[in-house]
Amino acid sequence: MTTERTRSWWGWGWADQAYSDERCAAFGAMIPGLRDRPVPVPSLDDVELPAPRVGAPTALSEVLSDDRSQRAGHTHGKAYRDVVRSLAGDLSAAPDLVARARTEADVVAVLDWASDHDVAVVPYGGGSSVVGGVEYRGDAHRGVVSLDLSAMDRVLEVDPTSRAARIQAGALGPVLEDQLRPQGYTLRHFPQSFEFSTLGGWLATRAGGHYATLHTHIDDFVESLRVVTPVGVSESWRLPGSGAGPSHDRLFLGSEGTLGVITEAWMRLQERPRFKRSTSATFDAVGDAIAATRAIAQSGLHPANCRLLDPGEAAMSGIGDGSTSVLVLGVESAHSPVDHSLSLLVELAQDHGGQVSEPSDDDAGSREGSAVAEGDVAAEAWRSSFLRMPYQRDGLARMGGIVETFETATTWDRVEALYHDALAVLRDAVRQVTGADGLVNCRFTHVYPDGAAPYFTVIAAGRPGQELAMWDEL
Amino acid sequence: MTTERTRSWWGWGWADQAYSDERCAAFGAMIPGLRDRPVPVPSLDDVELPAPRVGAPTALSEVLSDDRSQRAGHTHGKAYRDVVRSLAGDLSAAPDLVARARTEADVVAVLDWASDHDVAVVPYGGGSSVVGGVEYRGDAHRGVVSLDLSAMDRVLEVDPTSRAARIQAGALGPVLEDQLRPQGYTLRHFPQSFEFSTLGGWLATRAGGHYATLHTHIDDFVESLRVVTPVGVSESWRLPGSGAGPSHDRLFLGSEGTLGVITEAWMRLQERPRFKRSTSATFDAVGDAIAATRAIAQSGLHPANCRLLDPGEAAMSGIGDGSTSVLVLGVESAHSPVDHSLSLLVELAQDHGGQVSEPSDDDAGSREGSAVAEGDVAAEAWRSSFLRMPYQRDGLARMGGIVETFETATTWDRVEALYHDALAVLRDAVRQVTGADGLVNCRFTHVYPDGAAPYFTVIAAGRPGQELAMWDEL
Repeated sequence: MTTERTRSWWGWGWADQAYSDERCAAFGAMIPGLRDRPVPVPSLDDVELPAPRVGAPTALSEVLSDDRSQRAGHTHGKAYRDVVRSLAGDLSAAPDLVARARTEADVVAVLDWASDHDVAVVPYGGGSSVVGGVEYRGDAHRGVVSLDLSAMDRVLEVDPTSRAARIQAGALGPVLEDQLRPQGYTLRHFPQSFEFSTLGGWLATRAGGHYATLHTHIDDFVESLRVVTPVGVSESWRLPGSGAGPSHDRLFLGSEGTLGVITEAWMRLQERPRFKRSTSATFDAVGDAIAATRAIAQSGLHPANCRLLDPGEAAMSGIGDGSTSVLVLGVESAHSPVDHSLSLLVELAQDHGGQVSEPSDDDAGSREGSAVAEGDVAAEAWRSSFLRMPYQRDGLARMGGIVETFETATTWDRVEALYHDALAVLRDAVRQVTGADGLVNCRFTHVYPDGAAPYFTVIAAGRPGQELAMWDEL
Repeated sequence: MTTERTRSWWGWGWADQAYSDERCAAFGAMIPGLRDRPVPVPSLDDVELPAPRVGAPTALSEVLSDDRSQRAGHTHGKAYRDVVRSLAGDLSAAPDLVARARTEADVVAVLDWASDHDVAVVPYGGGSSVVGGVEYRGDAHRGVVSLDLSAMDRVLEVDPTSRAARIQAGALGPVLEDQLRPQGYTLRHFPQSFEFSTLGGWLATRAGGHYATLHTHIDDFVESLRVVTPVGVSESWRLPGSGAGPSHDRLFLGSEGTLGVITEAWMRLQERPRFKRSTSATFDAVGDAIAATRAIAQSGLHPANCRLLDPGEAAMSGIGDGSTSVLVLGVESAHSPVDHSLSLLVELAQDHGGQVSEPSDDDAGSREGSAVAEGDVAAEAWRSSFLRMPYQRDGLARMGGIVETFETATTWDRVEALYHDALAVLRDAVRQVTGADGLVNCRFTHVYPDGAAPYFTVIAAGRPGQELAMWDEL
């Protein structure tokens, strides 16, 4: 399937999943102040690209390319800022060349050549960065190469005894899961970008998966890394644990390509969950919902899903009428039934005033890459909305909307204040900058025993051509 | 209690817990080839210390001292190598001065002065290092200061909402637990050196606690660090989670004082466990015991204790006759009864041929800092032996024994081979080096889903005066 479909060059995901003009218009009508009809998506043929400043040497002609559509597709990540610039036909940030590494030797060759010729190299996995991670900024180099690792997508080895696998960095989420599934394993790391991001990207950015508690970050699944650095190839030992000096793996995690190019990793695997249950609780008061979420995060029950949607976010996800907060809960296990755990979670939610729906009793229907079993309506609605959001965002951007998200994290003693203060400041800022009310919502993407990660969404009406400046001001 | 008792200057722990001459002799008689009677412990008055090469400036006279007993007490850690050198009256490695920091300002002042005067500074917590961590080696500086932080031992703040506390780095294990206990919390980090090591030491060395699974390393309890570095005081934000760049906290963890002096940390706390159960299983075949241990480590049950003692180690701990391996198991929870978890663990052990004793049913009798509830004889014997071992080691050292341990870690696919190969190589080496058989035993100190940490003990007869050279050869 993945080979048949085309990725969007200007927006999120699959080209055929982008909202139609009609759908954009219908959706945009829900936000006051937007355009009547969407701005057209420019044809890639009409968009101007700067001429490449460096050429590929003959020795690397099979790897490096100045192909126009390659360069266009590697120009931006997938942030709101990126979509707006692409829609405006602004590809001035295009890399001079795109490298398609087939092997680690290709990576080394490209880096060696680039180093000798004062050319910057930006590692590129799935290209889903929403923080400018795939884009070179500045002018300190003679040229820029986007080093695409997506052809290095193999699970090279599975060690069933140690429950670990050696995986190439360029493997997209579904591609690596497809290779692990026949052996009964999963990496069980499902960021929102799962379909369009790679293992190497997750590692280089310290990605958080959508499981809400316990092992949520890719960091904890790393057994060893192999990295091409300026001084050679670094490979750490496969160790289940170590206290011998600072962890060099932890130094590469989050380094965003600045210290080297991750080419493969031994990753800890999980057995595929066989038992899943999910439910949701609604709360009239946000404070109660936060208290319930904290109690659950500190309960030692480690739910697979524990996601708090504030009233606005819940309504945006198609749950409720905007007056109640919704806490989506899920438990799962590869080993034993999880009914007891779910009932303890339900009790904790009820102790804090939560109204709990009937837990889903359909274990069989759980979906790939989901902590949510089918059956619970709110949980399903959340999941579906979660995957739809980026396409929705692109549709709103075409309608002139300002649509962006940002993540925060703080300890529980300050979570409620942060939530209320951020909402108030953002809503006020939206009024100041746009002259009208916008939507400012929040969900908690991850919860920890000592705190939570409130994640804010801002949707507001932009003035044509000024959207990015307005977002910067916001 | 801690203020009344005297620490041993030459060996482990409390001076009054050291084995008597009679006990040394009786214990030593169990190992062929040792002395008839222990070497005497030299009087500190008779031991020669090198003259200090640098003097304390007047401004720091309340902090820096060249007191002889202070310098002697700060010369060595507590490895076998350290004990042998101290018993031989060799304190040639003594620091020139000892600093007793009362505040972070003292730490800064000492580092500033030392930096200006080309003096090396070695941070010192409880002094329990067994890898030379408190000792300066080399001659690149004009002098050496041992910077003792044990006066900075306060829990400065407790945040019950976030379940975290700000704790000074010099607090010994019992000192910080005493301050957390009245509020119902525990750091729940109990390395074997618990009584004689500090939070700062645990952080600087990436200590492993004696809980066997899940959160065993101090790394996972760190919310933020405050560190005096050569370029200023570094303090990380209190964050429950982050993916923003590499974790700088993780860079300081394990840095052993080379990057700065940790002065305090916000640490994640646990509620004190209310439910505990323990049991043990014996196995005729080591391979079965390893398979059972792996199954449990990969079960997702997260036992608090899961410690495999090989036949020799079990016998040394006073459990069994040296023909069977013993797996000590413990479960605990602050929230709910753990009987069900224990029964699942027992089933897993039995599935792999384990003979399981009746689980302890005495929840009330669990001891401070123990994952073992009283009641199970083997579990209690293991715990008691665990705390006695370092004193035993000192007694054997006085009898001319070579007694040392070392830790390994590997993935499950190689654990059994490592175990057998290491035992064979070590036993052969002992015969080669000492001309006689010694004791070579193994226990697994930590187990992980992807591997284990086999920890080896070597006991052999040394030739007088050649013990360290023989150990080096081993």
